[in-house]
Amino acid sequence: MWGLIRAALIALLVITAPSAACAQNDPLPSWNDGAAKTAIMAFVARVTTAGGSDYVAPEARIATFDNDGTLWCEQPVYFQVAFALDRLKAMAAQHPEWKTRKSFKAVKTVLEKDRKNGAESDPKALDASDEKALLDVVTATHAGMSTEAFAQSVLDWIATARHPRFKRPYTDLVYAPMVELLSFLRRNGFKTYIVSGGGVEFMRPWTERVYGIPPEQVIGSAIHVQYQVRDGRPVLVRLPEIAFIDDRAGKPAGIQRAIGRRPIAAFGNSDGDYEMLRWTTAGPGPRLGLIVHHTDAAREWAYDRESSVGRLARALDDAPRYGWIIADMKDDWKVIYPFQK
Amino acid sequence: MWGLIRAALIALLVITAPSAACAQNDPLPSWNDGAAKTAIMAFVARVTTAGGSDYVAPEARIATFDNDGTLWCEQPVYFQVAFALDRLKAMAAQHPEWKTRKSFKAVKTVLEKDRKNGAESDPKALDASDEKALLDVVTATHAGMSTEAFAQSVLDWIATARHPRFKRPYTDLVYAPMVELLSFLRRNGFKTYIVSGGGVEFMRPWTERVYGIPPEQVIGSAIHVQYQVRDGRPVLVRLPEIAFIDDRAGKPAGIQRAIGRRPIAAFGNSDGDYEMLRWTTAGPGPRLGLIVHHTDAAREWAYDRESSVGRLARALDDAPRYGWIIADMKDDWKVIYPFQK
Repeated sequence: MWGLIRAALIALLVITAPSAACAQNDPLPSWNDGAAKTAIMAFVARVTTAGGSDYVAPEARIATFDNDGTLWCEQPVYFQVAFALDRLKAMAAQHPEWKTRKSFKAVKTVLEKDRKNGAESDPKALDASDEKALLDVVTATHAGMSTEAFAQSVLDWIATARHPRFKRPYTDLVYAPMVELLSFLRRNGFKTYIVSGGGVEFMRPWTERVYGIPPEQVIGSAIHVQYQVRDGRPVLVRLPEIAFIDDRAGKPAGIQRAIGRRPIAAFGNSDGDYEMLRWTTAGPGPRLGLIVHHTDAAREWAYDRESSVGRLARALDDAPRYGWIIADMKDDWKVIYPFQK
Repeated sequence: MWGLIRAALIALLVITAPSAACAQNDPLPSWNDGAAKTAIMAFVARVTTAGGSDYVAPEARIATFDNDGTLWCEQPVYFQVAFALDRLKAMAAQHPEWKTRKSFKAVKTVLEKDRKNGAESDPKALDASDEKALLDVVTATHAGMSTEAFAQSVLDWIATARHPRFKRPYTDLVYAPMVELLSFLRRNGFKTYIVSGGGVEFMRPWTERVYGIPPEQVIGSAIHVQYQVRDGRPVLVRLPEIAFIDDRAGKPAGIQRAIGRRPIAAFGNSDGDYEMLRWTTAGPGPRLGLIVHHTDAAREWAYDRESSVGRLARALDDAPRYGWIIADMKDDWKVIYPFQK
């Protein structure tokens, strides 16, 4: 009898073990066989092999992912900018003072062109290099309401807005190979985080559904929130003041603030991820740094050194020096978006 | 044969099911039977009963705990102040300029008294109400080094420093009933967080070992860290600038920043926890707010309205109005510290 019970226990343990995923033929079916996929698989095998010299305890298996251009598309403009422009139009009627606000000039041009043409606004007409104006627009359209009201406005936009090229909800434009990678890492005991220059509260309402990443594992840029009691009820009000920019050298700082330990794997696509890649891969023991290189003009976009969105130069140059893997979108990815599967 | 296997499977499921704790006679053996314990048990039963009207999905089972005075002792001074004073003495030789620094006067007095007496410094000699001087001391003794070096200094102190009354390491002075409660909540699918006015990096090096709370679930006050490259190696350097005070109205803001959703249970002991309790218990559905009331001068300390450390007045007055449970340390706790078990 005990033999049978033991057999049953072993069977159950096999079924429920975290490495059950490895029983699949291919955990990364949207990746072509190549150096990038091989490096990912080898790294995961190394850190999860119990008794191996490179074994990493599950609680230290922290993996951080940039969002724009790494997990989802960032062209023709960062999706949060498209959201801000749509908010600006929607909120303009209640804010007549915005018409004369100096830093809104670039944005006003877009709006007036729209009014004349009756056309959808073209986010490209807004000079993306005018960062101050953009920041001002984002702050104005993202503040003044409760955290709950803002989250609802994000969900409403995600449900209705359509990407200008693909005519689909923006959350359809996540990268299938990266969604598979997130899932593969989690099945191997990793805790997956987003570490993005984008606004933390712009991402949280949908990251769990789309990426399987809960709100508490999203790190991003933030404005100040203030606790207030309104009509006897406590609310958190979003203030038009930047609290933190989670980009470049801000990324390791944001990681330390939120996680308090160094990741062992980091994934990015631009020079904005340089310091996160450096910080992650400079630690002791096995490390993985990976850069998504946008090389596919036919299926997505091709850009790097000269792009105002997702500029990638220094990180590309230094990748060999620090052992960062380049995932070439055109060569390494069998499909780009889940709807193409 | 299948009958036996089924029996084995059922046996194993019973053993490994999340509610296994309920099979124990008493998951909170350090709590006396009484209103506080009953309220905790009833709340956990309500939110975990599948199909019940008050069922809460595991991912929304967020519980936040103040640290000083709620999870561990905070007398005769906050333990982090004792740490800062010890650091001040240890670092003084390298910082002759501290001798003339105006805001260090109160602290200097302590040091000079020590030198004369050859005695251990008495933290009570430092006027705890002189918050600015204290903040200055904490900032000076907590900044200028890498995050890793600071974490090591905390671990060294925890290993060697002794509490003046109990002559034991400070981490021995955690509250056994609260450690049981943390564990009980986690076994019921809760994610447990610390939300403390204390420094986040002062807590993270030991919270996993002592409370079972990993670094990424510790929220606290923070100074700025800056990414730098020194001798070709990236480091995060702690700057002497306050980034965030996680106290009073800062607690709900800190929770939103780090977690991005509202807790369903909150635990505190002072007016510094008032806003966290309000924010938590004002949400829809079942909520639990609990205040640890220090009423036991014999086994611990008795203090509330008049105390400069852990003052509790407004939260005590408003507890009935908002349904917050009072845990009376003298009556509700069978033992205070684990070493008394």
